[in-house]
Amino acid sequence: MQELISKVVKEISDTCCREEIFLRGPKRQMPQRDQIILLIEELRKVMFPGYFSDESDDYFLGHTLNRIWNMLYAQLKLAFSYGNPDADEVKARAQQVCGEFFAQIPEIQRMLVKDVEAEFEGDPAAQSRAEVIFSYPGLFAIFVYRVAHELYQKKVPFIPRIMTEYAHSLTGIDINAGAQIGEYFFIDHGTGIVIGETTEIGAHVKLYQGVTLGALSTRNGQMLSGKKRHPTIEDNVTIYANATILGGDTVIGEGAVIGGNTFITWPVPKNARITRDMVPPKNNCEK
Amino acid sequence: MQELISKVVKEISDTCCREEIFLRGPKRQMPQRDQIILLIEELRKVMFPGYFSDESDDYFLGHTLNRIWNMLYAQLKLAFSYGNPDADEVKARAQQVCGEFFAQIPEIQRMLVKDVEAEFEGDPAAQSRAEVIFSYPGLFAIFVYRVAHELYQKKVPFIPRIMTEYAHSLTGIDINAGAQIGEYFFIDHGTGIVIGETTEIGAHVKLYQGVTLGALSTRNGQMLSGKKRHPTIEDNVTIYANATILGGDTVIGEGAVIGGNTFITWPVPKNARITRDMVPPKNNCEK
Amino acid sequence: MQELISKVVKEISDTCCREEIFLRGPKRQMPQRDQIILLIEELRKVMFPGYFSDESDDYFLGHTLNRIWNMLYAQLKLAFSYGNPDADEVKARAQQVCGEFFAQIPEIQRMLVKDVEAEFEGDPAAQSRAEVIFSYPGLFAIFVYRVAHELYQKKVPFIPRIMTEYAHSLTGIDINAGAQIGEYFFIDHGTGIVIGETTEIGAHVKLYQGVTLGALSTRNGQMLSGKKRHPTIEDNVTIYANATILGGDTVIGEGAVIGGNTFITWPVPKNARITRDMVPPKNNCEK
Amino acid sequence: MQELISKVVKEISDTCCREEIFLRGPKRQMPQRDQIILLIEELRKVMFPGYFSDESDDYFLGHTLNRIWNMLYAQLKLAFSYGNPDADEVKARAQQVCGEFFAQIPEIQRMLVKDVEAEFEGDPAAQSRAEVIFSYPGLFAIFVYRVAHELYQKKVPFIPRIMTEYAHSLTGIDINAGAQIGEYFFIDHGTGIVIGETTEIGAHVKLYQGVTLGALSTRNGQMLSGKKRHPTIEDNVTIYANATILGGDTVIGEGAVIGGNTFITWPVPKNARITRDMVPPKNNCEK
Amino acid sequence: MQELISKVVKEISDTCCREEIFLRGPKRQMPQRDQIILLIEELRKVMFPGYFSDESDDYFLGHTLNRIWNMLYAQLKLAFSYGNPDADEVKARAQQVCGEFFAQIPEIQRMLVKDVEAEFEGDPAAQSRAEVIFSYPGLFAIFVYRVAHELYQKKVPFIPRIMTEYAHSLTGIDINAGAQIGEYFFIDHGTGIVIGETTEIGAHVKLYQGVTLGALSTRNGQMLSGKKRHPTIEDNVTIYANATILGGDTVIGEGAVIGGNTFITWPVPKNARITRDMVPPKNNCEK
Amino acid sequence: MQELISKVVKEISDTCCREEIFLRGPKRQMPQRDQIILLIEELRKVMFPGYFSDESDDYFLGHTLNRIWNMLYAQLKLAFSYGNPDADEVKARAQQVCGEFFAQIPEIQRMLVKDVEAEFEGDPAAQSRAEVIFSYPGLFAIFVYRVAHELYQKKVPFIPRIMTEYAHSLTGIDINAGAQIGEYFFIDHGTGIVIGETTEIGAHVKLYQGVTLGALSTRNGQMLSGKKRHPTIEDNVTIYANATILGGDTVIGEGAVIGGNTFITWPVPKNARITRDMVPPKNNCEK
Repeated sequence: MQELISKVVKEISDTCCREEIFLRGPKRQMPQRDQIILLIEELRKVMFPGYFSDESDDYFLGHTLNRIWNMLYAQLKLAFSYGNPDADEVKARAQQVCGEFFAQIPEIQRMLVKDVEAEFEGDPAAQSRAEVIFSYPGLFAIFVYRVAHELYQKKVPFIPRIMTEYAHSLTGIDINAGAQIGEYFFIDHGTGIVIGETTEIGAHVKLYQGVTLGALSTRNGQMLSGKKRHPTIEDNVTIYANATILGGDTVIGEGAVIGGNTFITWPVPKNARITRDMVPPKNNCEK
Repeated sequence: MQELISKVVKEISDTCCREEIFLRGPKRQMPQRDQIILLIEELRKVMFPGYFSDESDDYFLGHTLNRIWNMLYAQLKLAFSYGNPDADEVKARAQQVCGEFFAQIPEIQRMLVKDVEAEFEGDPAAQSRAEVIFSYPGLFAIFVYRVAHELYQKKVPFIPRIMTEYAHSLTGIDINAGAQIGEYFFIDHGTGIVIGETTEIGAHVKLYQGVTLGALSTRNGQMLSGKKRHPTIEDNVTIYANATILGGDTVIGEGAVIGGNTFITWPVPKNARITRDMVPPKNNCEK
Repeated sequence: MQELISKVVKEISDTCCREEIFLRGPKRQMPQRDQIILLIEELRKVMFPGYFSDESDDYFLGHTLNRIWNMLYAQLKLAFSYGNPDADEVKARAQQVCGEFFAQIPEIQRMLVKDVEAEFEGDPAAQSRAEVIFSYPGLFAIFVYRVAHELYQKKVPFIPRIMTEYAHSLTGIDINAGAQIGEYFFIDHGTGIVIGETTEIGAHVKLYQGVTLGALSTRNGQMLSGKKRHPTIEDNVTIYANATILGGDTVIGEGAVIGGNTFITWPVPKNARITRDMVPPKNNCEK
Repeated sequence: MQELISKVVKEISDTCCREEIFLRGPKRQMPQRDQIILLIEELRKVMFPGYFSDESDDYFLGHTLNRIWNMLYAQLKLAFSYGNPDADEVKARAQQVCGEFFAQIPEIQRMLVKDVEAEFEGDPAAQSRAEVIFSYPGLFAIFVYRVAHELYQKKVPFIPRIMTEYAHSLTGIDINAGAQIGEYFFIDHGTGIVIGETTEIGAHVKLYQGVTLGALSTRNGQMLSGKKRHPTIEDNVTIYANATILGGDTVIGEGAVIGGNTFITWPVPKNARITRDMVPPKNNCEK
Repeated sequence: MQELISKVVKEISDTCCREEIFLRGPKRQMPQRDQIILLIEELRKVMFPGYFSDESDDYFLGHTLNRIWNMLYAQLKLAFSYGNPDADEVKARAQQVCGEFFAQIPEIQRMLVKDVEAEFEGDPAAQSRAEVIFSYPGLFAIFVYRVAHELYQKKVPFIPRIMTEYAHSLTGIDINAGAQIGEYFFIDHGTGIVIGETTEIGAHVKLYQGVTLGALSTRNGQMLSGKKRHPTIEDNVTIYANATILGGDTVIGEGAVIGGNTFITWPVPKNARITRDMVPPKNNCEK
Repeated sequence: MQELISKVVKEISDTCCREEIFLRGPKRQMPQRDQIILLIEELRKVMFPGYFSDESDDYFLGHTLNRIWNMLYAQLKLAFSYGNPDADEVKARAQQVCGEFFAQIPEIQRMLVKDVEAEFEGDPAAQSRAEVIFSYPGLFAIFVYRVAHELYQKKVPFIPRIMTEYAHSLTGIDINAGAQIGEYFFIDHGTGIVIGETTEIGAHVKLYQGVTLGALSTRNGQMLSGKKRHPTIEDNVTIYANATILGGDTVIGEGAVIGGNTFITWPVPKNARITRDMVPPKNNCEK
């Protein structure tokens, strides 16, 4: 057994020397996934006082915000130091982003209050707003998205993705931190929802499980990076379960209703009602 | 930094005063999610003796049931005290529901034995009944549902939803605790399954991943609360992957087979075989 | 309360005596799920040095491989002892499989390096290979599958399934450990993907969320055990979101592109582009 | 083995029925040792801000005091409910003692600042006041005593003893919570020190390891309960290592110095210097 | 740094090869200290039902005894396998000792009930028997000794010493598991007490802090192994604080009272009262 | 309650402002006690391979030494940064001390091998050298002292004291890290032993419980700092239980035997045998 293990160590070691993707030696360090998850959990206590902690007074809020600041600052330093050897610059950026993020916290909370309202109003099975806050996966995914989006906008590497993948893992809802989503956002059940990086979503939009807001094709992979390739959903649109809407030019007009199991790759006019049997305006499918 | 945190505390505090949904002060306390999860894990040891614990004799069963009683009683008190200031009444209800739930445990176990049989018989990849019990997400979701349903019937707030969302998070299977599901229930793979609150399901029913048993529309949200809005699935029905069946009047007749990726919003007669290319009896889509 | 608990203990005890599926007494012991998860987590540190641990030098690799050996050996003994009372034979098999598995570790790592490349190249939203390794659920599911597949091939009971269900639970991607999957495998988003036990997948294949590679029907359940009943996907095939491909005779030819939300139960020729509106060659649906 | 265990259960059960000292059934519950230890650790963070926690601002202090209040209140209820079936009275007493204790916290802190000064000034090996606060067992024992003494004075059962035994276990210093100890108290090394329940100690007193301030005899055990049976030590007394001073009438006068390994059972005048070879004024030894 | 560590590894490795006391390779394994401590903690719950656990009914006792059996059996196998390569013999001995120990548990409990009585009666500061059970270090040390002594008598290696050193660490009371101690044993405060391996103590004996019952000299070290070299204390003897009693021929006669800080190396007659100023019968000091 | 807590926060805050000993704000941070304890526990695994860990091969040693390096470096930075605002200088010192300490590890281990030999040879109750390593508090205290002494010599603040106080807490043996102790050091039982900062001890010295090697007086406290004020013990000296030896001029000559409960404040010639009844050469007691 010892010989075998020595042999495996040697082979892995060799592979690591050959492949530049591995991080050996003390030079590089990744952000810590468990700390980022903890940060999300602590933020939730602050965003929804009284739901995820026994205490909720100002001492608790201030103490928890202090903890969040320290955790976020530490993780930002790790994230920014990836590929940046200038320790002072890294600290300065981490400090600045931390401050900007904190300044946004009250606004994020105000958005979340509206999302709670949308979730409660939209779901006949919801027995109270408290139940929505306490146990709805849709609201959790939106909360994590709204936090991650702030950091995505500030060009923080790794952390927004770690956050949204945490929500994805718990809820099956995969919202890219780059998406832009308006207020009163509603998600029901949610498993299988995919919202791509360049998606734009207006206010009062409702999404059900299995909805994909994706790219028509990702044939060219990395060459598409940064291009608008996901749809635009205007205000008051409802998209029922398992609908697939693809493409950067696909705009779903204000007030439209997209039926379940539809497959849309063309623009939909305002207030349209799209059902499964409809023929698309022209045969516009993925390349 | 300290000034910024003080400012954030103040703004959050102000929002909490304005918005009645937040729970500040010592008046209200939510059930504890981690305790409810622990309760589920302990119940699983009792329901499937020998699988999730090294011990399985009567001492172990009795000891574990004692622990479950105490955990359940504590959580029921928290749940019932939401919006009810009468501590004695809360205790009495918690006591009563605890007793009624315990009286049902042997029956739930008998149901689960049948579900195991259905899972094993239905899946060619299953190597043994033990493997089904030990690692099948479908069985786990059914187990949690059967427990949560008992509490839902007794009008316990919060706890049934917390339970089923726990299973939802682990399995991607979202069964509302209000659904009524018969014996020998079979779920394969399961990710993306949604079973709505007023769904009725008979015996020997099989469901594959991505199946939605949902409402035609939830346009009126909270106004639909309590109404029958999800389908009825009769005995011996099989529903293949990603089928969508919607509506409170939609009855799938005994022995019917619903093909994969179908979209059904109308009643299906007994023993019918529905495939993807079939035209619905009349154009009946969601409003 | 004590009386009720005694009554419940008695009834459960009776059920356990009647139903042979329960494991009472000291005779049988299941593998330990938490140990198998830990083993996966430790293996990930070895496969991707520097990403999931602060250390990555040879001491760390050797030490971690020692731990993995001990954990795997212990779990293999538990798994092989299920239904095998010969302790010496069990030890010998566990020892042998342990050795064979370790000899494969470097090869598995080489495969994973290629999978990382495929994930990065295929996703415009990926900012770096590091981000792929660190937070992409698709890569995690592939990693777990590649490990579990080695043990499946050696006919280890329980453990491969526990491993893939762990990945399934975290990612919503359900790859049966029996499937055969070539190099440069790409999965995007992933929630809802199902890859059946007898599926064969070539090199450079891309899969999006919600894709099912399943059996046409499992009507005969256990009688189909071991039969080829899932499709074959040749090299360079791309399968877009929510496509369903069913049947053991269904071969998707090299270079084909399967559009989103399609439903395929017939062979697809090389380089074909299948879209949602196409009529199948003959009406071939599940039995 | 099962038979043997059943037999042991039965015998223990029988003993429990015979012996009234055991607490069976749900009627009685003891305070929780781990919670009381946690309370001590949290209080230490408040008493010495910045030493045992990274934070020390007002948010932290307020939050920690809230936690301490809740822990103390819960434990006081458990302690007072021992032998008192009146739940409302128990709550009222717990509430009152909690309030009185909190009102004393600032005064306890002021005493501890003086004790730190005494420890630092008295020990040539102390490199800083910070070292004294951070790692001197003597200071820890004094801190715990000062906290426990407040609760002893309010006639709280169990908790003061649990606190001082915790310090005793960690430091080898056994100070009964009933002792009365003045300001600027100094303990060096400390192992083996015993300070009895009715001891009175003035200000600026120094004690070294192994000093006993005890009763002449405890021949009559419980009959002596409440009687003054331990010595009185006046201001500015120094007592060197392993000195034994016994008896309720034994007063060590102001400024006296008691040499190491002495055995004193008679009053010592002010400013006296007692060494090991001195003959006691009259042959006064323990009965 | 890496070079230095490699150098240290090499030197330690060399030392380990030279010195036979180190246990390298997979051949030998020590009992697990944390498991033995857990075993003691679990046994305490059984010995004093209702004090160290919320539950105390027969289910709890049986379940806990099952756990204790498994833990003890595992540790006995590790202990007996030290220097014994015959696995079957090791198992048989472990099995036998386990059974014999369990058969003694009720008798140990009966002894402890008497010890509680002695502690309560002897200490004026004790407010209740419950306080004695719950927080007296003397009783804890006696409990651990009585358990360890059973295993010492069965010639179990390592485990008795690990147990008594655990108590020693927590209480400062060092009772060798080989000592023989009668019923109604009383220890007050306890720090610094040493009771040697061949000490014999009768019933109703009282010991205070700092008492040594030791060997006159251990000049010849290992050559004295197994010889009677510690004193014999007859029934109803009281020994006050810091008394030192040495030698295998030193018998303290029934009912004698040994004063504090005395130094005794000669036999003391029945009912004698020994004080500090007494001249020994002949000048008999340690060699 | 909220008012009271606010009042307490304010008063503590005020005291903190007044008293300079408290560390408020983000400026200062103490070494972390739990990390230093962990470091000690990890070092023990390296010093005694095979006793405190299942593994003991070179991978394990190298991996553990890496962890120890990182932990030590982090704590050294915290310790050196106390009162030193120059971050680069702090890092450089931490780096240097870390390297020097590691270079000493093999020598420390060689010393410990000799201490084990002395412990085993000296104690008739020791059943094996393994038992000494595994469970003797004396050896543990010596091990911790030898580690802490290295750091004391390098003028590391806080950490040596935290280490020796950890051993003191577990064993009741208080060895100041500044003491100089030769090879083959033997401690039996140990509770109550105090060895002062400027003590010098030769080779093959034996100490029993309760021995004090202390200062004659510490009347002048901090003014004595750094002065030789504790005794010198030459080679092959044996000091029996509870002996007290005081003073910087007190030299115990080679081969001397100091009887139990003696009190020595004057030089003792080579090979002398001091017993309790001896009159000191001149009446030389503590000042």
